[in-house]
Amino acid sequence: MSAERTFRLTVAYDGTAFHGWQKQPGPRTVQGELEAALKRVLGGDAIATAGAGRTDAGVHARGQVATFTHATALPARALAPLLNRELPRDVRVTGAAEAPERFHARHSARARRYEYRLLPAPDVLRARYAWAPGRLPSLAALAASSAPLAGTHDYSAFGAVSEPAASPVCRVTDASWRVWEDGVAFEVTADHFLYHMVRHLVATSLAAAGTADPAAHVAAVLASRDRRRGGRMAPPEGLSLERVFFEGEELP
Amino acid sequence: MSAERTFRLTVAYDGTAFHGWQKQPGPRTVQGELEAALKRVLGGDAIATAGAGRTDAGVHARGQVATFTHATALPARALAPLLNRELPRDVRVTGAAEAPERFHARHSARARRYEYRLLPAPDVLRARYAWAPGRLPSLAALAASSAPLAGTHDYSAFGAVSEPAASPVCRVTDASWRVWEDGVAFEVTADHFLYHMVRHLVATSLAAAGTADPAAHVAAVLASRDRRRGGRMAPPEGLSLERVFFEGEELP
Repeated sequence: MSAERTFRLTVAYDGTAFHGWQKQPGPRTVQGELEAALKRVLGGDAIATAGAGRTDAGVHARGQVATFTHATALPARALAPLLNRELPRDVRVTGAAEAPERFHARHSARARRYEYRLLPAPDVLRARYAWAPGRLPSLAALAASSAPLAGTHDYSAFGAVSEPAASPVCRVTDASWRVWEDGVAFEVTADHFLYHMVRHLVATSLAAAGTADPAAHVAAVLASRDRRRGGRMAPPEGLSLERVFFEGEELP
Repeated sequence: MSAERTFRLTVAYDGTAFHGWQKQPGPRTVQGELEAALKRVLGGDAIATAGAGRTDAGVHARGQVATFTHATALPARALAPLLNRELPRDVRVTGAAEAPERFHARHSARARRYEYRLLPAPDVLRARYAWAPGRLPSLAALAASSAPLAGTHDYSAFGAVSEPAASPVCRVTDASWRVWEDGVAFEVTADHFLYHMVRHLVATSLAAAGTADPAAHVAAVLASRDRRRGGRMAPPEGLSLERVFFEGEELP
């Protein structure tokens, strides 16, 4: 029998019709579809994958990374076309490479980058991929609101009530707003994220941008570590996992 | 009984899961969903609508116009919110107004404007709304290819073989390419279109843009009036009906 090899896949998906990345018995998940496609392509026993980011129901990805090990003799470059023939249209493997033996999508990841897109008015052609919360604040007010977010802090105020995080201290290396089409987008990079953290950051930033001192508002919520101060949560459709960073890759 | 009133609706839809605009027995259509929603809101007998553009399966709209007559006492402004509560999420009524008695979405329309979007590489978050045919020609080459298209011509070379048009002479008031996100978009306005015409124009323009003289290539195809010269057809997902122009509205 040939030796096990480790493979790294880059995976893009439209999360609208998925109950998130993580495999569950029953509901349709991205990991479930990916593992089923791997089994059809490589044959043999079930193949377990690890994902770098556990995206929620309705959340998208352009740069999810998944790893698995297998003794196949196939060249890595053959995997993407073979898998894409088996996968449903809302999941695409956009890259495949062989990786070092101990490389693991979750444990080896140094940072994840998410993007959240907002539109000033509903648009049926972008409703799956952006949120239209009504009139948008100015880019300047949004920039001010995100200023206190970068750094190493306890982000408990932006976590999920239902799921206390094991390590609420995250290292956020970038949190910024930019013009996106006729709307705006929030980009945030961190070593890890609390459950629902980006969607809470977006909702709080929007609320803060409407106040006289957006930075002070966000700084006070952050310092409180109190989930009840963090406000409501932005819906999943605006969010996507854009990229995962590994050892040796430069962070934004 | 109160008098019949004429109403005009602006309708946006994601065409992906529809067998086109036009009502058919059986398949899911936009007109079918709209008429079912009208009946639920207004009650009484079936309500027949007229649409300004007969979009094909998979083709989208941001500015379809539909008219119908009804004796309801409801103010027109109440129609959009009431209809949107009844409509599936992939159809939205974005405007509603009362119109002159003889106003008719198809007969009163003076021109339709379509947009076709192209991307340089596949993107799972835009795969429903744009076509990624591979490497895109330069904007300059595309502009050259579209130059011969404006004017009043016999567009038989760009019609569907299966459906000879009653009037193949169209008045195209604008046919132009512009930068769209990281790709390009073709915008075309005409008094009417042959079946599949925009998708044939896009495919022929792309092919022409790869030749030494894009304008001469397109001009020759146009002059031939020969459907077999018009080449293959671009897929539906890149296309949307952006706007319908009526009497008194300025054309691009």
